[in-house]
This record gives sequence, structure tokens and C-alpha cells, in this order.
Amino acid sequence: MNELSHGSRLDAFVDRYAERTRGMTTSEIRALFAVASRPEVVSLAGGMPNLTALPIAEIAKVFADVIMEEGQVALQYGSGQGHPDLREQITQIMALEGISAHPDDVIVTTGSQQALDLISRIFIDPGDVVLAEAPSYVGALGTFHQYQAQIVHIAMDDDGLIPESVRQAISAVRASGRKIKFLYTVPNFHNPAGVTLSASRRREIIEIARENSVLIIEDNPYGLLGFNEEPGRAMRADDQENVIYLGSFSKTFAPGLRVGWAAAPHAVREKMVMASESTILCPSNFAQMAISRYLATQPWLDQIKNFRELYLERRDAMLEALDQHFPASATWTKPRGGFYVWATLPEGIDTKAMLPRAITARVAYVPGTAFYADGFGTRSMRLSYCYPTPERIQEGVRRLASVIDEEMELRQTFGTISGDEKK
Amino acid sequence: MNELSHGSRLDAFVDRYAERTRGMTTSEIRALFAVASRPEVVSLAGGMPNLTALPIAEIAKVFADVIMEEGQVALQYGSGQGHPDLREQITQIMALEGISAHPDDVIVTTGSQQALDLISRIFIDPGDVVLAEAPSYVGALGTFHQYQAQIVHIAMDDDGLIPESVRQAISAVRASGRKIKFLYTVPNFHNPAGVTLSASRRREIIEIARENSVLIIEDNPYGLLGFNEEPGRAMRADDQENVIYLGSFSKTFAPGLRVGWAAAPHAVREKMVMASESTILCPSNFAQMAISRYLATQPWLDQIKNFRELYLERRDAMLEALDQHFPASATWTKPRGGFYVWATLPEGIDTKAMLPRAITARVAYVPGTAFYADGFGTRSMRLSYCYPTPERIQEGVRRLASVIDEEMELRQTFGTISGDEKK
Repeated sequence: MNELSHGSRLDAFVDRYAERTRGMTTSEIRALFAVASRPEVVSLAGGMPNLTALPIAEIAKVFADVIMEEGQVALQYGSGQGHPDLREQITQIMALEGISAHPDDVIVTTGSQQALDLISRIFIDPGDVVLAEAPSYVGALGTFHQYQAQIVHIAMDDDGLIPESVRQAISAVRASGRKIKFLYTVPNFHNPAGVTLSASRRREIIEIARENSVLIIEDNPYGLLGFNEEPGRAMRADDQENVIYLGSFSKTFAPGLRVGWAAAPHAVREKMVMASESTILCPSNFAQMAISRYLATQPWLDQIKNFRELYLERRDAMLEALDQHFPASATWTKPRGGFYVWATLPEGIDTKAMLPRAITARVAYVPGTAFYADGFGTRSMRLSYCYPTPERIQEGVRRLASVIDEEMELRQTFGTISGDEKK
Repeated sequence: MNELSHGSRLDAFVDRYAERTRGMTTSEIRALFAVASRPEVVSLAGGMPNLTALPIAEIAKVFADVIMEEGQVALQYGSGQGHPDLREQITQIMALEGISAHPDDVIVTTGSQQALDLISRIFIDPGDVVLAEAPSYVGALGTFHQYQAQIVHIAMDDDGLIPESVRQAISAVRASGRKIKFLYTVPNFHNPAGVTLSASRRREIIEIARENSVLIIEDNPYGLLGFNEEPGRAMRADDQENVIYLGSFSKTFAPGLRVGWAAAPHAVREKMVMASESTILCPSNFAQMAISRYLATQPWLDQIKNFRELYLERRDAMLEALDQHFPASATWTKPRGGFYVWATLPEGIDTKAMLPRAITARVAYVPGTAFYADGFGTRSMRLSYCYPTPERIQEGVRRLASVIDEEMELRQTFGTISGDEKK
């Protein structure tokens, strides 16, 4: 390789990159996760949906039928905004959460991650502020960071974002002379916090955002995955002009096709389409038509019910194991849907420093600091229950509890080892 | 709609967009192309590959097999860099053009358009210069423009980019104190110019780029679609450390799956993967595995031979019709492969102003100005022969020639109607 022959000249292009590229570095926990993917490790780290319940033979037939019956269209370039049939069906899915939308309001994206990228591209100048929950979805933080935004985190509790904290954050940022571009929120079954924004707070936050001209990005991949409840009312249902709603088929069908969407105010949606055409020309016609046909010919709502039962069983396994094995001084959220539990350990424990020891003990999680832009979260961790079997989840939590117990013993013997929560 | 109820307040977010968004406007020729898609119009405007020769039943089986045999992987999230099996096969495809690559050098992208976006994101700060052929691919210009690059066009002739002009452009830009981020080139069967960069010039331009530390982006969607010749030697084959090669399955298989790739120097490829993860998390596992299985089980090189024959027949139809119907004072290129002829009309004719009249006469093309960032190209047009039947191509050229004849008569009667070639 070039690096070896040129000695210290590791990257010939180092002085030619754009300003925004300087912040791009490989995550230090990445190498650890390569180890964590070994079969003997119980991974409570991933966010991969569990696809074992999918009707594989039916899906194979749907895919083949799309090619046999509409192959010349499915294999061709398509519309930059997305296939009209799928956009129509998406409005019906959003109607389950009270949203009244026209297919024209919808843009189909390469997973909802691309919608986050397009929104960032359209709105964020370097130094602009994005408001986000504390903690927040790591993939969104990464995208905002690439567009050189400053993240201001807003406190949440078991009912989600705290309205008064939203109000204070807006005032404080504006007092400092900075521009707020939007509030990013995951209102349902939050990733990573596992909490849900209450209905009364939704109304209150919509009102605060309107009063202050702060756009809301409502990211909702898990909304239909509530365990014992009907889908809640989306924020966009109550404000179509100041809320961009992001949806995805990754958790209600399958992520391997990379299809998500955004429903946005008209002018914003137009700009998102232009930005998307510049990025990928158009989303995959085949992927869209395959999902469209799956929705039209398969009992997709029953399938979502299967997913909910599968995840409920796993959540119960995790909560039970946490009760049984975790120290009494730890706390954790009790999600009513989605994939994640957010656990906070006794003071003095640093979950990032502890991760290599956990992996040695054959269990993995994501340290809390990954979900903050500001270094917080040192004694927290995200535990996901979506993918492993209930037995593996319980074994994983048991292993993790042992590692934590050892850490606590060390801490009692030597004082605080690491962690900066007290600073 | 908001627009109607709020009178002149057309876009509530108009003062909140990012700086880069100001340049995003809908192309004025877009509305015309909506009309041009009517069946009675012969479109010589599009760049859609002709998929009639694809083995539909075999593809349906390949897709179904991927789901039946590897559905749990194909429907799941995948690697940000792309599926290892497909990256291995991509190295074999690039070997046809003399490139020796390792699967680690390759990143799979959502069409090669996404590779252009990632490269722009990594390298371009506002005001940086990108060197590009005159004319150049409209989709690339659009992406560079979104990253606020300045495009400096470089002259080409029937043998492609002129090395001396490359040298002069580099000197002139540097003398003006601006930074050059890369040279963007489509060396084979150029879009839109229809010419091919000669082997000796490739060597010369590689040398100039190296001497001047200017990275080369070699965009090669049509390389395997030469009519009566074996694939030429890629520029990357002779310089792996200063050339990023872009490939695509859109023209050799099908664009509806949105799969392309880049082969890049190690450090750049790493940054492209990080930028891609931030944009889309990962490319579609299904799309990649479907193409991988197609390559492994189907005679894909024979299929490309079918494509070449199909396009050759259409090119011949177009060249013959141009000879027969176009005015003697017009000139056009004679492509040895690919999809496009670049025609230049007598002075005084403005192809953009003429387009509505052409569409009324039921024929469409893309005006030359679309392929320049600087307003040039007013009397040129791109004519594509990839999609219609040979009979329709001939009829389209006949209709277009009549429109041109009328324009020329008007011009003789009233003097120059429009066009700024003389300014």
C-alpha cells in the first residue's frame, strides 16, 4: 500500500479535503463492534430489526411478479420524487397516525437516513443550531455534524421532551445570536431513550415551535410498533405547515430495500426532491414497486402485529433480566414499543471504558456518549432487545450485570475509576 | 394550500434555508419535458437505457432465488462500503479495462450519481474549482453546483479533452488564486459529446494531473458499450493513486436497482464510506445480492453484446437520418459507443429558444446550454439514440430537421433571432 512505501505520508489528499471533511473520523468503538459480531458475543448493541417472522416465500413471489409483470418499468430510472403508487399507499399508512396527506406531499428516500441528509443539506449552514433530545439518535447526530451544525440537547423524562426545556433552549440559543434551523425529535419509542412523548406535550411543543418559527422534524420509524396500544397521533397530524414527518419501511417491513419517506410542506418538499436528484437521481423503482405490491397483496398490518408480539416478548425478557441481575442503584426506561432500553448506572462507572471488558465477557452494548454531541452519557448505555432470542437477551444481561458488579467493586476499592459526570 | 391562503407568502421557510439552497431552482426546460413524455413525441432527449433485450424471466428467477436462499441477509441492513461478494465481482469487471483492484478499494453507491455526490462532499468547499469537459454531464454539473463549486470548462475535440488546454486551465485557475479540487472527465463515449479520449491523450493527461497534484475523476458508465471495439484501457489502470474511477450497472444491466461504484485511493475511499453512511446508512443489500447473483449465474457479457448491437443499430439510424435531413452547415459527432450525438447548428440558432417549437413538431432534445455552467452551447443540442426504435429515431430527426429549416428561413428573413454565441 501507498502508506507503507511513503512512510509518514499517510494520506496524499490530506490538504485537499473540504472543511467539512476534517470532522470525519472513524468511531473508536467501531473496531470493538467488529469483535462484537462474533457469534459467541450477545449483541445488545445493534438496531437490526428481527426478520425471522417475515413470509419469505410470499416475498419471493412478490419480487418475481414485479419483474414478470412490470419489469420494463421496475428496472428503469424512475421519478426523483418517488413512484406515485407507493406515495399514495404511504398516505394511507400515515393516516393510521391521524395524518391527512396528499401523495404530492411525499418524497420517497433511500431509507429515512437520506431524508435526514436532504433536510440537513437544505437548511444547515456551518454553525447553525439543531435542537435534539438528550440523548438523540446517533445516525442523525452524525449527519447534522457532517453539515457542521451545532447540536443543542434538550432534557427529556419518561414522557419525552420537556416543553419548558424546549422553550428555554430556544431563548438561550437566540440570546447567544445563533440561528436555530430545526428541532429534531423521535416522539415514539425513542432511540435510544425508549420513552414516548405524551399527547399533551406534543400539543405544547407544536405550539412553542410555531410561536418561535422553529421547524419540527418528526422522525418516526417505530410508530406502528407499540406493544399494547394503537398508534398515537403524529405531530404532523396537528401541524402540516411546520412539521416534516419521516417514515420508513425498515422496521415495519425490511431495511434491505432502503425505502423511507418524508412528508413535508410544499416548498420544502420541492427542494428536497431537487437535492435528492442531485444525490442519487431517483430512488430504486424496483424497491418501491416491490414494497407497493407487498402492501397491496399481503396482509402487512397482520405482519406488523407479528413484529409487535415478537418485540414485546423480547422486551419482557430484557426488563425481567434487568430486574433480576442489575444492581439496585441502576435505573432504566420501560419502553412501550420499539427496540431500546436506556440504562443508567451508578455514578463513577464509565460505560465506554467498560465496553472492552464487556466484550471480553461476551456481551455488547452502545455506550451512552455515542448519543450526545457534548460528551454526556458516560454512565449510560443503550440496550437493544430487537434482534437476539429472549434466552440470549437474558444471558446477555446476566453477563453484563457481572461486568458491572466487578466495576462497582473496583470503584469501592479504588474510588472513582473514570467518568466525568461530576466534572 | 398555504400559498393560496397566505397570498404572496409563497414559502414560509424562505429566510431559513442554507446558503447552498439558494442556487436550487427547477430547470426551466423541466416543464417542457413533461409534455415531451407524451407518446406522440419522439424523445431524443432522454438517457434511459433500452431494456427490451433483458432476459426478464431469468431476472425474475434470480430475484426470487435471492429471497428464498438468502432472504434474511438480503432484506437486512448491510455494510456501508457494500457487499463483499459484489465488490469482488466489480474488480473482475474493471479488469476488462486493465484495472487491477482489490475489493477493499471499492465502495458500492446508489448509482454512480451518489459517488459524484460523495466525492463533492469530501473535496469541495464553496468557491473551489472543478475542471470539466466543455460540454459536460449535466448531472455532475448539478452536483458540483450544489456544493458551490466553480466549474471551469476545458476544450475537447474529436479525440476528447485537449491536453494543452488542461495544462493552460490549471495554470490560469492557479494564477487567479483559486483551488482546483479535481478534473472530472467521461473518457469513453462522452455524455453529451459522443467522443472518446484517445489512448495517447489519456497518458498525457494522467501525467499533467500528477505533476500538478490534480485528482482525476474518471466517470465511465459507457465503457463496455463500444460498438466495434474491445473496452479501452481505463485511466485508473495507469494511475491508482491519483484517479477515482466511477462505474455503474445502470447501462450494462439496469438502472432500476440504483447500483454503481467507485474505486478510489485508500484514504479517499475510507472518507467516502463515512460520508455514505451518513447519507444512506448502507446501499441496498437486496439490490447488490441480486446483481451479484445475476453476474454469477447469467451470461452477462453476452447480454452486454446484445446491448451493443441494439445501440449500434440505433446510432446508425440516427447518423443516416442526420446525413439525409440536417442542413449542410450543421455538424455532429460520430460516437463509437454509448448513447449520444452532439450536434451543432449554424450560427444564430438558439436551441433552447427552438425547443418549444420542436416539441410542438413532436420531437424533443436537450439544448446545449444544459451541459455548460457558463452559458455556452446555445447552438448545440444533445441527441440520444438509446431508447426509441430506429424508425422512430429517423422520424424524430426528420421532424427536427424541418424545425431547423424553418428557423434558418426565419433567420435569413429577419437576421439573428436569438442566441449569444457572438456576444
